[in-house]
Amino acid sequence: MSVSTSGGAQQGPVGHGAVMEHLDEAECLRLISPGGVGRLAYNGRYGLTVIPVNYKLHRGAILFRTGQDSPTGEDLETGIAHAEYQVAFEIDAINPAAREGWSVLIHGPAHAMTTDAERAEVEESGVEPWGPGPKERAIRITPARITGRRIRRPGE
Amino acid sequence: MSVSTSGGAQQGPVGHGAVMEHLDEAECLRLISPGGVGRLAYNGRYGLTVIPVNYKLHRGAILFRTGQDSPTGEDLETGIAHAEYQVAFEIDAINPAAREGWSVLIHGPAHAMTTDAERAEVEESGVEPWGPGPKERAIRITPARITGRRIRRPGE
Repeated sequence: MSVSTSGGAQQGPVGHGAVMEHLDEAECLRLISPGGVGRLAYNGRYGLTVIPVNYKLHRGAILFRTGQDSPTGEDLETGIAHAEYQVAFEIDAINPAAREGWSVLIHGPAHAMTTDAERAEVEESGVEPWGPGPKERAIRITPARITGRRIRRPGE
Repeated sequence: MSVSTSGGAQQGPVGHGAVMEHLDEAECLRLISPGGVGRLAYNGRYGLTVIPVNYKLHRGAILFRTGQDSPTGEDLETGIAHAEYQVAFEIDAINPAAREGWSVLIHGPAHAMTTDAERAEVEESGVEPWGPGPKERAIRITPARITGRRIRRPGE
């Protein structure tokens, strides 16, 4: 099982009645546009970390909130002005009964939204965290690369 | 939002009616024991990669299948005998309506199961891939670290 790095939709070989399609950027953005829960992945102090966060797609970017002093908030601080962590963000929808589903993978820099204009943008997006405690840090991932795929079983 | 690195269950501070619990290893293993879809994460040729795969928990380890010549299968080959990629595997269950859920994160080496005894173990586990094409490569992740957390809203 692999992640597409290609552009336009194409079909993979059929096996076990399954078809894999690579999704283009427009289709990926359409699929993730409702927002919801995605999985932030990054190389942090405890190694490779993957955690679910509630996100919004706002002006073509992924927005989510975290705590200023949380491990994630601190891990995403490079400590160097204008230097930003490269992270991945995965969103999927799986139908276990049908064994079908799609997944989208976004790569890009994790930008801490700290200016007044950025804080206004966070409010505008309406993104809310699920976890307890103050989540005063907002992070924006501007996609540098968007890939996706879908597995279907048209013959079943 | 952070991943627990602690052992026993403990409760975080309450905010927005939410409570975060850190889950101990036994509880994490109980939650993921039914198998299903988890997310494999690793640093591959296209950077940090996160993809859903169908897994089984078998003898305390994560088992899944991939294609011999797929990007994932090739990425997980170190090319060095007995050297194994360190990967992460994330499993979660989210209830968007209730804004509750749990997630488990496993770290460990990705071992290609190639001996006769290992092939027998793969058959015994009954793990099946969802994607099309032959999935003749089986991978076992033996957990080196298991962490997890749960967000609940008992007051709502």
